[in-house]
Amino acid sequence: MADAARDAILPHFRLPALVAANKEEGGFDPVTEGDRAAERAMRAVLAEHRPQDGIFGEEYGQSEGTSGLTWVLDPIDGTRGFISGTPTWGVLIALSDSTGPIFGIVDQPYIKERFVGGFGEAYVNGPHGRRDLQCRSDSTLSDAILFTTFPEVGSAQEGAAFKAVSDKVKLTRYGMDCYAYALVATGQVDLVIEACLNAYDIQGPMAVVQAAGGIVTDWQGGPAHDGGRVIAAANARVHAEALAILKQY
Amino acid sequence: MADAARDAILPHFRLPALVAANKEEGGFDPVTEGDRAAERAMRAVLAEHRPQDGIFGEEYGQSEGTSGLTWVLDPIDGTRGFISGTPTWGVLIALSDSTGPIFGIVDQPYIKERFVGGFGEAYVNGPHGRRDLQCRSDSTLSDAILFTTFPEVGSAQEGAAFKAVSDKVKLTRYGMDCYAYALVATGQVDLVIEACLNAYDIQGPMAVVQAAGGIVTDWQGGPAHDGGRVIAAANARVHAEALAILKQY
Repeated sequence: MADAARDAILPHFRLPALVAANKEEGGFDPVTEGDRAAERAMRAVLAEHRPQDGIFGEEYGQSEGTSGLTWVLDPIDGTRGFISGTPTWGVLIALSDSTGPIFGIVDQPYIKERFVGGFGEAYVNGPHGRRDLQCRSDSTLSDAILFTTFPEVGSAQEGAAFKAVSDKVKLTRYGMDCYAYALVATGQVDLVIEACLNAYDIQGPMAVVQAAGGIVTDWQGGPAHDGGRVIAAANARVHAEALAILKQY
Repeated sequence: MADAARDAILPHFRLPALVAANKEEGGFDPVTEGDRAAERAMRAVLAEHRPQDGIFGEEYGQSEGTSGLTWVLDPIDGTRGFISGTPTWGVLIALSDSTGPIFGIVDQPYIKERFVGGFGEAYVNGPHGRRDLQCRSDSTLSDAILFTTFPEVGSAQEGAAFKAVSDKVKLTRYGMDCYAYALVATGQVDLVIEACLNAYDIQGPMAVVQAAGGIVTDWQGGPAHDGGRVIAAANARVHAEALAILKQY
């Protein structure tokens, strides 16, 4: 599925004439033919090999299966980055049961880099070859690297909560979408804090981070697989320290 | 030189035990052995092939030459991104005379992507093969994509100036360092606005953007090759529209 999505998307990446349609009334939520073509390509693979499973995709909606398993698909997470030409968007694939994702992929087609987690494995395959993924186990809030996609994060209250955490860390960076979660799994980044996520934004990255030893919850410490306010942390200590601040908001 | 820098840096990228030293008293300006090794590698190439030229490098300072030409080097632009594992830092090389850069390279070693501009050429060589670079000629401020690295940009006044431009564009994104200038040259991004730059941060990207038809000046429309407050624009119209706002600050 990830291979099929790569092939479908790359011809659309950095096209001079790429047209982004706007999905959001009164705002700007771009979608491109790359998004749609990639989700269709992944659905074609599932129709052939896993007709018994449900599918929930960003562009073409939800269908029920009979197996109790659902494929949760975001063909291009980070479409704003995609239409800007950055190499930090990704194809997100999760296989989920009623408890949340049990396997996930974050794929970056332009770099040819694939982060995989679940079924006892966590690895990246890319320019450095194949390497195991392992979150940083010894970081604390004061030496943490924190990412989020938009500086405003979400509502004013959510932005204030993020800033309260940001004030305590060593370094805060922006703009990476799903790629920031992949960097938690590689042991490079300690925290990702976001709001207003959809289920398909988080389930693939969540499986990868968890398989690499990290923790993904909502801002109260509860389940995060339905999206909303999400924190991904490299280890239990940095998770607890950040959560203690977020819970006040 | 760019090949030598790639070879010197990549073994240091995403090392679990990468140590970043802090160059800034009271702040956080990281430098790694990757930065130093890459500048030494580039200087070794120059010592062999261009001993008559001057060198100005971020890590090892300035030396005079006899040719009137100076190589301006930033071995890793975006060290904060580098230590976070993002693929958006770059090796910056410029060849400059007293008027500014006449040739430049922005190289991204992990993606194996090289943006080159000068001596009548402007091209990128990377995952899509070799393609000519050409800035977007028809964009206006209201449909522009704008980048900067840090949301705060610089001083409070500089941040306010940036926000005034940001309020008028279609999309604002953060966190790309030199890679944002490369995206102006590819025709993907219309504006980069930054402050507090050093000469070695801007001369390589500036040469690439100019060779692709773009405009790089300071916020008053004057020369930008010494750094400070910089605007890179895809075309004269979007440059004039943004400058009209920036000049008020």
